[in-house]
This record gives sequence, structure tokens and C-alpha cells, in this order.
Amino acid sequence: MALREIPDIVVGRLPVYLRALTRMFQEGQSITSSKELGERLGISSAQIRKDLSHFGEFGKQGTGYQIEYLVGQIQRILKVNHEWEVALVGVGDLGHALVHYNGFANRGFRIVALFDANPDKIGKPVGGLTIIDAATLLDEIRAREIKVAMLAVPADKAQTVADKLVEAGIKGILNYAPINISTPKDVRVQYIDPVIHLQRMTFYLDAK
Amino acid sequence: MALREIPDIVVGRLPVYLRALTRMFQEGQSITSSKELGERLGISSAQIRKDLSHFGEFGKQGTGYQIEYLVGQIQRILKVNHEWEVALVGVGDLGHALVHYNGFANRGFRIVALFDANPDKIGKPVGGLTIIDAATLLDEIRAREIKVAMLAVPADKAQTVADKLVEAGIKGILNYAPINISTPKDVRVQYIDPVIHLQRMTFYLDAK
Repeated sequence: MALREIPDIVVGRLPVYLRALTRMFQEGQSITSSKELGERLGISSAQIRKDLSHFGEFGKQGTGYQIEYLVGQIQRILKVNHEWEVALVGVGDLGHALVHYNGFANRGFRIVALFDANPDKIGKPVGGLTIIDAATLLDEIRAREIKVAMLAVPADKAQTVADKLVEAGIKGILNYAPINISTPKDVRVQYIDPVIHLQRMTFYLDAK
Repeated sequence: MALREIPDIVVGRLPVYLRALTRMFQEGQSITSSKELGERLGISSAQIRKDLSHFGEFGKQGTGYQIEYLVGQIQRILKVNHEWEVALVGVGDLGHALVHYNGFANRGFRIVALFDANPDKIGKPVGGLTIIDAATLLDEIRAREIKVAMLAVPADKAQTVADKLVEAGIKGILNYAPINISTPKDVRVQYIDPVIHLQRMTFYLDAK
């Protein structure tokens, strides 16, 4: 099946499967089933089998999945069987937390460039890197052929910086600014805004 | 229509609509259309009209939506027309960033209690609050009747802390730890893991 026919919602579940399978493997487990994985994730086993069937045959009826093999296959599908270099724009509190976040290691991403427009920050070391003047973003990202960026600037700066990232050749933006940004169709944007998640939960809660 | 019949995916879009509408209102706009909102968000106008129709009639054919009214209605639906007190467990780099994050203000949430198990952190002030011993979490949260928590502890601590939060009466957990956690059915969990979002994007990118 051509990749373009795979629903994005299915693609969105693969990283969740990968995270759980990787953890099982780290815990010393070598075989699992769609049933066990589903129970761990609160997803039906049928859903998991259907999702994976978009990409090939990864297990045998009755014998389950070889975890290490399946991890490798999903890494390959998601293209995180190699490491992507990531640019981070905006080195405030959140930016610092991202630089020090140890959850990127071995999951396909490494922050290699830090940008900020604040003269007080430029030149300062953070987590083994040095903050670069955001004014040089275009040249730096182009020269290093970085394709993925995290945007941790204030909302009112997000679109301007995103435009610059796109011009520099960035194809994937993880946007932490609490605002929707527009990009050309070939640039993927994902959003992280804690309030969006919190509001999605309070809908279901009893009003105080 | 009973609330339980509304698909969670629809509920999940309401906060995105609310964020965009609030921004329009702040920019001085008073009326919008599903077409304009859809263009801003990259969602079809039909989808927006259909989503909103689950909750009532908010606009008139041809005249569009009164933004201030619609903002108030969505706030009411999401139960963020009042402020929820939020407990934060784990005051590392990410926890600090969350305490200082100014995106919570006027969106329904206020961090009112900080917990950490590290003796070096307990008693330290952060953003106008004082870090409390995580050992007292159960009593503190019960006494203050806090219903929403953010979990910013390491992955290997997340389930244990989540169990404690549930025991304390928490009904919504925003989990930043990169691991799935199990909770009773009446406790909602949302996840924020940047790698999940990044991997969902790299699927579509040309391999380096």
C-alpha cells in the first residue's frame, strides 16, 4: 500500500507503539502480542493489528511479535533508525528544559543548534551547546541541512520565526507556542500546548 | 444530545477553536465565520460547523459567529469558565518551565501546589509557590480538593505517583513522563511527549 494512503491517525499511533515496545525490550521481554500491547496502551488488539498491517506482516498468528524486530521495523517506518538533527528556537525556561530533556536520546532526535534573539542569551552555553543569534538562523540551518525544528518562542513571534524556518529548509516544526501557524503543504507542524490537553480533560470532569 | 455521545476527537478540537477565537477577540475582531476559522486552523468549515452543532446553535446562516459569545459558550462546555487548581508533581527543568509558563493565565488553569521528593528542593520557592514534600501529596491534594494534576517526574516514577494522585482524588492527569500510565476509567489522562510528535512528522519526511 502506498504510504500516502495511510491515515495520519494510524501514523500517530506508531510512535506510541514504539515507545511501549522499546520499554518492554528494555525490561528484558523478547516477545509480545497485540493483546498484551493493547492492554498496556488502552487500545484494542484488533486496532493494533490493523494499524501494523498497513506496513507489512510483523508477527505470526499465535506466536506474537518478536519485540526487537518490531522495534526495528517501526523505527525504520518512522525514519528514526538514524538520528535527526534538531534546531531549537527560543531558549527560555521551556527551551532550557528541552535541551536538558533526556527523553530524546536513542529515540531519533538530537538538538544540535540553539537560537535566541535576546542579546543577553547569545553566546551563552546551555547543555554543551552555545546559543546562536537568531538573526543567523537562515544561514546556519541551511548550511547544516537541518530539517526538523522545535519552536519555543512567544506566540506573537511564532509565525515570523516559522516563516524563516521554512525558508531555511525545515520540513517539520514542533510548535510549543500557543498559536496556530501557517506553513506550506510540504512542511509538517505538530503542536504542544498543555492547555489544549487540560481543557480536553476538564470537559469530562464534574464542574467544581 | 447527551455529552457521552460526543466523540472524543470532537472534544479534542474545541480547545483549538477556543484558542483561535480568543486570539481573534484579543485582536479586536467581533464576528467570524466557520470559513475564516477553518482557514486559520487548516480545518474544513464543514467540520467546524458539524463539531459545534453537537453542542447547540451558535451562529446564524449568513451572519457568522459572535466571537465573544462563542468563546463564552466553548469555555462553558469545556468547564473552563472558572479556574481549575492544578497540582504539579516533579519540579525539575520541565516543572520550572511549567510554573513560569504564562500560557495558563485566563485559560482556566492555575498551578497552586508543587511537589517533589528531592530533599534539596523541598521548601524552595518557585514562582511564588513553595515546593512541598511529595510524601504529603495524598493529604495535601485531598484537603485542597484539587482535581487536576501535571506529572513531570521521570518515567520510572510515573505510575507510582499516578496511583497516589488517583488515590488523592485527582480526575485528570497531564502526563509529561514518556510512558503510558494506567488509571481507573473515571480518571482522564493526556500525554505530552515531544518525541511522539517528532516521530509522527519524520514519517512524512524524506530520509536523510
